[in-house]
Amino acid sequence: MAETLRVALAGLGTVGGGVVKLLDANRDLIARRAGRAIEVVAVSARDRAKNRGVDLSRFRWVDDTWALAAADDVDAVVELIGGADGPALTLARATIGGGRHLVTANKAMLAHHGLTLAVAAEASGVALKFEAAVAGGVPVIKGLREGAAANVLTRVYGILNGTCNFILSEMEASVSAGTGRDFAEVLAEAQARGFAEADPSFDIDGVDAAHKLSILASIAFGTQPAFAAVEAHGIRQILAADIAEAAALGHRIRLIGLAEEGAGGLFQRVHPHLVPLDHPLAHVAGSLNAVVAEGNYVGRLLFQGAGAGAGPTASAVVADLIDIARGEWGPPYAMPAAALTAAAAVDSGARRGRAYLRFTVADRVGVLAEIAAAMRDAGVSIASLIQRGTSADGTVLVAIVTHEGPERSVAAALERLRGSASLAGTPLWMPLLA
Amino acid sequence: MAETLRVALAGLGTVGGGVVKLLDANRDLIARRAGRAIEVVAVSARDRAKNRGVDLSRFRWVDDTWALAAADDVDAVVELIGGADGPALTLARATIGGGRHLVTANKAMLAHHGLTLAVAAEASGVALKFEAAVAGGVPVIKGLREGAAANVLTRVYGILNGTCNFILSEMEASVSAGTGRDFAEVLAEAQARGFAEADPSFDIDGVDAAHKLSILASIAFGTQPAFAAVEAHGIRQILAADIAEAAALGHRIRLIGLAEEGAGGLFQRVHPHLVPLDHPLAHVAGSLNAVVAEGNYVGRLLFQGAGAGAGPTASAVVADLIDIARGEWGPPYAMPAAALTAAAAVDSGARRGRAYLRFTVADRVGVLAEIAAAMRDAGVSIASLIQRGTSADGTVLVAIVTHEGPERSVAAALERLRGSASLAGTPLWMPLLA
Repeated sequence: MAETLRVALAGLGTVGGGVVKLLDANRDLIARRAGRAIEVVAVSARDRAKNRGVDLSRFRWVDDTWALAAADDVDAVVELIGGADGPALTLARATIGGGRHLVTANKAMLAHHGLTLAVAAEASGVALKFEAAVAGGVPVIKGLREGAAANVLTRVYGILNGTCNFILSEMEASVSAGTGRDFAEVLAEAQARGFAEADPSFDIDGVDAAHKLSILASIAFGTQPAFAAVEAHGIRQILAADIAEAAALGHRIRLIGLAEEGAGGLFQRVHPHLVPLDHPLAHVAGSLNAVVAEGNYVGRLLFQGAGAGAGPTASAVVADLIDIARGEWGPPYAMPAAALTAAAAVDSGARRGRAYLRFTVADRVGVLAEIAAAMRDAGVSIASLIQRGTSADGTVLVAIVTHEGPERSVAAALERLRGSASLAGTPLWMPLLA
Repeated sequence: MAETLRVALAGLGTVGGGVVKLLDANRDLIARRAGRAIEVVAVSARDRAKNRGVDLSRFRWVDDTWALAAADDVDAVVELIGGADGPALTLARATIGGGRHLVTANKAMLAHHGLTLAVAAEASGVALKFEAAVAGGVPVIKGLREGAAANVLTRVYGILNGTCNFILSEMEASVSAGTGRDFAEVLAEAQARGFAEADPSFDIDGVDAAHKLSILASIAFGTQPAFAAVEAHGIRQILAADIAEAAALGHRIRLIGLAEEGAGGLFQRVHPHLVPLDHPLAHVAGSLNAVVAEGNYVGRLLFQGAGAGAGPTASAVVADLIDIARGEWGPPYAMPAAALTAAAAVDSGARRGRAYLRFTVADRVGVLAEIAAAMRDAGVSIASLIQRGTSADGTVLVAIVTHEGPERSVAAALERLRGSASLAGTPLWMPLLA
């Protein structure tokens, strides 16, 4: 058996602790599979005194995290510090620059600096691997980079944020149970139960999913990571009533990150969608993640599993280490970074599809006519319109599904209605996933 | 860019034609991703004159297929001849023995000879790759070998035969539509439409799925492939009434290949199961395939997609070639063949679970009592029992769901009823997937 792969861990939060536990628990099997032992030799984190429920005394403790990048006895550094810049980025650059392999779960850093890190890793002849950065334990980076590598991919999309999916699933369950809880109430409970962060905005506003989508899109389409070009929308606006209307239409609401090539460029957007019940993403419940890749030969592939948590994320980190131990790794973005193209960002207005629109309106004569006229004047064709009874505050809910048409027209209709005294609050627009 | 990977194709049926078309259509993208061009240089098949809808005149035609294994201008041979032995095995051995990489979609050959081929490939320092052999285009071999490599896997199971899943889905649709077509009728139509072979026994009796399961189990558990130890059952006995009863119980019927470690050995079985609606495999419809792997850190992973057809299978074959072109390949069964253990086969009687039992019985006094007594005497606890009205031939259907208990007890109960004059035909037993 070849020499041990010697690993340094930077960051000892939930995932870091999970990596230590996993390497302990599955040590022999991993050595058989990797062809050599994988051993942690050094660790670093902010607080040495903190009890992490795992014996760290056998590892060398390093106070200055960046020193891991220069340690003579380290072959690979696992970066679990987090944050797009700062210590994580400093460590990543130094690790790669020093000729050591880097494994990271840091989607924010990859979204912002993935390309320059890949260029540096290829120049240094080391691995830059990040399976844990997207969809937690689900091997979707590998699935796209290798499993689907023979295909021109037409779309890649999925449920990339477990917190949002958990909240939407809880809302769904409450609608089925007849209690119909809205977003804010379910979020508060998710926070109390530890399923959502105290500051949940990265999750619920779609930023986290946007980070992940930009990584997937780069690998899928051979384009340079372009996080700034991702339109990110979240789930704050969704009401129990929207979930009920979607169900009545044979759909479920999911926050979908979607990237596709076309119209001379790359379209990337995170947005809640109505997903038809016969689509596999409609059945992804709770905090699971799932990614679909559509290829010109393979058709539709689905990868699904736990998108977060210590165990699944550690599983992905260690899978990367096993690839490194086996010597089975190559360009991080599936092709040399120099071969990635700079794709033009495609505006959403160029897209076509069906849409769901929900208005909260004053209950008075002429409101429906005003909405219908705005749709007509913008050239939007209405497939169905439902008005539900008056609520306690005197407003009623109007839900519309359009025929297929340009998103631009729907946006124009909403623009016509902007500021109308008939509307209570901002209308909600969601595409139907086709 | 490095030198071209030069490929010989043996077998030019649907999949072979698909490989040629795919390499033509996606040529430039594949070269970017693989870091080098992948080119077919030689082909061989039984009938040179046959029109395959693709220009083969640019390739060297070789009459003696085995000669591909010794051609100076060939780096990798793709074996698409089929059959466990004969020309496919001769070619595989000669290719590996001659120091050339082998890619194959031949699950029967791997089920019977995979271990010796892996030993030979490792001795020769060449790749033996077979992503297309299991679940067609779905990268599940890679998912287990690499994606889930950090985990002790507790179970691996899935829908491994598209023909059976298509037939069960069609039966399901007919039950929903109120026409309730039985197996034989749907099979005949599937054959007429080209979704099932003229001799469908390999598919519908579970042999094809058993081949695939033995490959998955070996990679998942680090055990030598043991096809002879797979219990294979098919779907011939399933009636529309079974599907209706399963639906009434909140389940769908799927042919599942399942392997798990425990009781000091490895259990492998292909059998129709009742799958609860909240399990992802219940939503795998038509000819799709899907595999679930359950790991001690990652939890439940799902891989899903097209399990057959020219495009998906070619996608998997070419993904293997890209891995070879990248130099990203290692031991075929995830660890050196010498490290694979010889697992004892575990008998199904040792297993516990809930079961579905369906009896077709004569409509007369005492039949239910006889069945209930047999259950009681064998120690089987009944959770529910439904008897449905008389059919034209005077028989009635009795469907039972048991509480959790040993499979051995259920088998004993059925043994007690064997030969009973009350039963019309053989009872059907199916486990509930837990």
